[in-house]
Amino acid sequence: MKGKLKLDETDHQILNMLIDNTRTPFTDIAKKLDISAGTVHVRVKKMEESGIIVGSSLTLNYKKFGYTFIAYVGIFLEKTSQTQFVLNRIEEIPNITVAHVTTGKFNLFCKIRAKNTEHAKNIIFLIDDIDGVNRTETMISMEESLNDKTRLMKSIFENM
Amino acid sequence: MKGKLKLDETDHQILNMLIDNTRTPFTDIAKKLDISAGTVHVRVKKMEESGIIVGSSLTLNYKKFGYTFIAYVGIFLEKTSQTQFVLNRIEEIPNITVAHVTTGKFNLFCKIRAKNTEHAKNIIFLIDDIDGVNRTETMISMEESLNDKTRLMKSIFENM
Amino acid sequence: MKGKLKLDETDHQILNMLIDNTRTPFTDIAKKLDISAGTVHVRVKKMEESGIIVGSSLTLNYKKFGYTFIAYVGIFLEKTSQTQFVLNRIEEIPNITVAHVTTGKFNLFCKIRAKNTEHAKNIIFLIDDIDGVNRTETMISMEESLNDKTRLMKSIFENM
Amino acid sequence: MKGKLKLDETDHQILNMLIDNTRTPFTDIAKKLDISAGTVHVRVKKMEESGIIVGSSLTLNYKKFGYTFIAYVGIFLEKTSQTQFVLNRIEEIPNITVAHVTTGKFNLFCKIRAKNTEHAKNIIFLIDDIDGVNRTETMISMEESLNDKTRLMKSIFENM
Amino acid sequence: MKGKLKLDETDHQILNMLIDNTRTPFTDIAKKLDISAGTVHVRVKKMEESGIIVGSSLTLNYKKFGYTFIAYVGIFLEKTSQTQFVLNRIEEIPNITVAHVTTGKFNLFCKIRAKNTEHAKNIIFLIDDIDGVNRTETMISMEESLNDKTRLMKSIFENM
Amino acid sequence: MKGKLKLDETDHQILNMLIDNTRTPFTDIAKKLDISAGTVHVRVKKMEESGIIVGSSLTLNYKKFGYTFIAYVGIFLEKTSQTQFVLNRIEEIPNITVAHVTTGKFNLFCKIRAKNTEHAKNIIFLIDDIDGVNRTETMISMEESLNDKTRLMKSIFENM
Amino acid sequence: MKGKLKLDETDHQILNMLIDNTRTPFTDIAKKLDISAGTVHVRVKKMEESGIIVGSSLTLNYKKFGYTFIAYVGIFLEKTSQTQFVLNRIEEIPNITVAHVTTGKFNLFCKIRAKNTEHAKNIIFLIDDIDGVNRTETMISMEESLNDKTRLMKSIFENM
Amino acid sequence: MKGKLKLDETDHQILNMLIDNTRTPFTDIAKKLDISAGTVHVRVKKMEESGIIVGSSLTLNYKKFGYTFIAYVGIFLEKTSQTQFVLNRIEEIPNITVAHVTTGKFNLFCKIRAKNTEHAKNIIFLIDDIDGVNRTETMISMEESLNDKTRLMKSIFENM
Repeated sequence: MKGKLKLDETDHQILNMLIDNTRTPFTDIAKKLDISAGTVHVRVKKMEESGIIVGSSLTLNYKKFGYTFIAYVGIFLEKTSQTQFVLNRIEEIPNITVAHVTTGKFNLFCKIRAKNTEHAKNIIFLIDDIDGVNRTETMISMEESLNDKTRLMKSIFENM
Repeated sequence: MKGKLKLDETDHQILNMLIDNTRTPFTDIAKKLDISAGTVHVRVKKMEESGIIVGSSLTLNYKKFGYTFIAYVGIFLEKTSQTQFVLNRIEEIPNITVAHVTTGKFNLFCKIRAKNTEHAKNIIFLIDDIDGVNRTETMISMEESLNDKTRLMKSIFENM
Repeated sequence: MKGKLKLDETDHQILNMLIDNTRTPFTDIAKKLDISAGTVHVRVKKMEESGIIVGSSLTLNYKKFGYTFIAYVGIFLEKTSQTQFVLNRIEEIPNITVAHVTTGKFNLFCKIRAKNTEHAKNIIFLIDDIDGVNRTETMISMEESLNDKTRLMKSIFENM
Repeated sequence: MKGKLKLDETDHQILNMLIDNTRTPFTDIAKKLDISAGTVHVRVKKMEESGIIVGSSLTLNYKKFGYTFIAYVGIFLEKTSQTQFVLNRIEEIPNITVAHVTTGKFNLFCKIRAKNTEHAKNIIFLIDDIDGVNRTETMISMEESLNDKTRLMKSIFENM
Repeated sequence: MKGKLKLDETDHQILNMLIDNTRTPFTDIAKKLDISAGTVHVRVKKMEESGIIVGSSLTLNYKKFGYTFIAYVGIFLEKTSQTQFVLNRIEEIPNITVAHVTTGKFNLFCKIRAKNTEHAKNIIFLIDDIDGVNRTETMISMEESLNDKTRLMKSIFENM
Repeated sequence: MKGKLKLDETDHQILNMLIDNTRTPFTDIAKKLDISAGTVHVRVKKMEESGIIVGSSLTLNYKKFGYTFIAYVGIFLEKTSQTQFVLNRIEEIPNITVAHVTTGKFNLFCKIRAKNTEHAKNIIFLIDDIDGVNRTETMISMEESLNDKTRLMKSIFENM
Repeated sequence: MKGKLKLDETDHQILNMLIDNTRTPFTDIAKKLDISAGTVHVRVKKMEESGIIVGSSLTLNYKKFGYTFIAYVGIFLEKTSQTQFVLNRIEEIPNITVAHVTTGKFNLFCKIRAKNTEHAKNIIFLIDDIDGVNRTETMISMEESLNDKTRLMKSIFENM
Repeated sequence: MKGKLKLDETDHQILNMLIDNTRTPFTDIAKKLDISAGTVHVRVKKMEESGIIVGSSLTLNYKKFGYTFIAYVGIFLEKTSQTQFVLNRIEEIPNITVAHVTTGKFNLFCKIRAKNTEHAKNIIFLIDDIDGVNRTETMISMEESLNDKTRLMKSIFENM
């Protein structure tokens, strides 16, 4: 990260526009910033290569696919030496979209998305059945009121 | 969702390609699926209008910006009638990227991203100071081992 | 309870048959027990008057009406002197089918039935909004595996 | 549930009357609704066959039989794969009238009815001794203030 | 308890005086109640034989012997079937003065008296080392503000 | 305790015999120890005056009086400055036989004896209604397996 | 910390010797390292001025002064905006030797040293009485098995 | 401790000055107290030999070395008989600066210092991997607001 990552004002403005819509054509960005499309291309490339831009993802409406159930699952392991093994098994369950190593009450903490109560039960049972998992505790979301990284990224650029 | 949302095999394949990279040019998609770019355009438009595609977001590497600290904050409200008011205040804090209404131990449950312990403390104090917030409890992530919706979306399309 | 409640073998057999099906015609019971239908009638009447038989209830399949969500809600009151007042408010919420006064962690403990997560959230918010309710904690059922008083009643008669 | 279950106003009124008293003679219902007793019979039969009406149960006064003690027992299993096995054992204990699969703090959650503290202790020990049961936690009811499904069923019919 | 235990007013008054001081001479009691010392003797004997009076105990000032430390210890067993075995081991530790079977969070709940922190630690380690004891949790008393059965016994006699 | 309290072997033996039965006549003790009854009297007097012997209490069988219910109640105060005030109120409730100041989870911790669940509920409500009491949590005893100070006192004398 | 703090091998060795005994004469250090006492003086001065060496403290044996009681006290505040105010009050209580701002279960977390249980109770009551303190929870140490920063400092120097 | 430890006013004043700065030259102390340097030397020696003065430690600024992360780790053992063994392993981990035997929720309670979240995770994993350690729970400090034994020692001397 030392030295190479020196984003200037132009980089910030490019990121800012892409954050709002990752599909914004580079020509639009170029026009707005009064630079050439080639410059936009070069800068985005540079930010991808330096690892700042990791990728882009489509925000789909899970409810439209019948996925209305969100839960957070805390996992107690038998031994923390099994952490990596269990994380590998977790990655094989696509309904787990987020997983953290924590060291408070739980060893691991996951977010799952399911169609309904029955479906969630089966996913949690899959987790419970992983070797090395001792016990799980689940907290159910009644409403996902906010899920947005845009505000954070904008605030980061403003404070840089 | 009634009736209108009938995604066919072509829609699934388009979504599948965009999930991998939201910036994939429609001409590339068209070529792969052996259809016209116009068809791709029409179908994506249709999926946007029906609310299936909500938007697209850039996946940035938070660590490159010095954001290495992730915590989950459980909020106890004084009254659940304050839920919406507190959610509005929460939206004004950009470091809170996710917020849920829960009905278990906590009333609200949030995810925050910060630069370090000191920074996290200040963000949590901001939450504590919102009118109607009674108390908070924080769980700190030692490592975000997984954060990926792609596996889920692919599994949804495969099972449709 | 003193003295008057002396159920004999015949009473037990009548109860046993009614427990299996409350609509069993008295004539069928009479035939089985080799007594007159009038006797059956008199004895049932007597058990109703002494308060042994409180009533009868239809067992409906809640799922057929879209009610697939069951939760247990623990209520913390501000003052236990409000217990009766809060119980009266609880009775006005038809989705609460069971309510107990407890003295462990919670002051009151309820069972609710709802259509889905969203619906349950609204019912819990109704409870939270009752004057005197300080806080609630909810535990969600993933499956009602057993709900049957018949086995208990039969075991009581057998052990009498 | 698709299509076949189309309860009309008459079905609702029949259910409403049976909920108040499952032994209401069909001729009484017929007279009230100004239809033939045969129609009542046909409709009830139809609701039974479609699984809407599961059965009917006698509401007895447990206190009259010396059963004044109610407790809720949370069960921690050694492995969730034992869930079904333990549920089968639970069904053999008639004093357990309700059992749920939960995924929060407990794996299973039961309601038991007993004569007194001593009796309850023995029932809980029976549960503790089931293979696969790791530990139990008990919450004791001081008073069953409400146990009534009628209000819910009526509210369902009114909102249909 | 049936029939035999019919304490009359005289019995109550005798108990009342002995509760205040178990060494009160029977002649003093006799004089106060205007009955013969023999009657007092007969009645006390009767109450002992019927099991009402179990014995008498000296109330010593533990602090005078250097015993200033009181703690309550909750015990988690590995299996409740070990309850009796562990209770027998507990009885061999004289510093445990009270022990209960509970079914809430703990399996057993004890009161211990020790000289100081170091001494208490050793007693708790003795408990931890009993076969079948899985874990203990200790709550330390800062002051025994009340330890008196007299008020209760008097209130019982007054309400009989 | 400085200096004055120097119990010798004879004192220990006297205490030992009184612990077994507080009503043991002094002449019996004298004979056993081969000293004069006057000496026994003087020594017991001395131990009473120095505060070693506080009194004596009758051990009655609570069950014979219908008192079969024991519970431990943890009390959360609004302010610890109310501790003494609440302890005074607690002393007015005869069913509370033991009360401690604790500083762990609870502020005060009590033992209550009641006739049954209903009775216990009312006593707990009395506690809840004391000014300064914020909340209570109750743990119910299923069986008092041990309640005996004799073993401790004997062990103290042996180790002196 | 930028640039100025460049400790070399000699600095490390000086620190290493002072850590073992802060009173080691500079002439001894000089002889061991084969440098002049003046050099030692200059370097220690430099480390003090740059804030690396904050001071030195005497390690006394608390037990010799009758201080055998150690407890950790978790503090719940009414509002986190009172944090600084409460910390100032805490500093006025000399028995609190360590205090942290935490954001998990507690708002503040302290270590106290006292003579005995009674003394500890009074210190905890002082904390409870600070304005803004809502509640405290105490965990008592049975033995301070380790209290040593030397190992850490040595390991830091070795890994630099 | 009996007899030998009779610190007089002069000892207190010497300790008081050394507490402020352990490197204060004995000649300075002698001048201030109007006694000979030899006397200071003798008295300090005496206090070291009697075990009152255990040693002296350098107070370094951990942040200057990149150590900004403090956490408290509660340890659950499998058996308390392993306490000493686990304490020995803990002593081999230099980042653990404090360790207590506790008997409440945890068996052992430690303080660790680390460079950052990642580093702390690795230290906690080291603890988790010790034979006999069943599980750990971590509480993270957001700010060490106070760490000072001087106030306590001064208050002890003042009250002696």
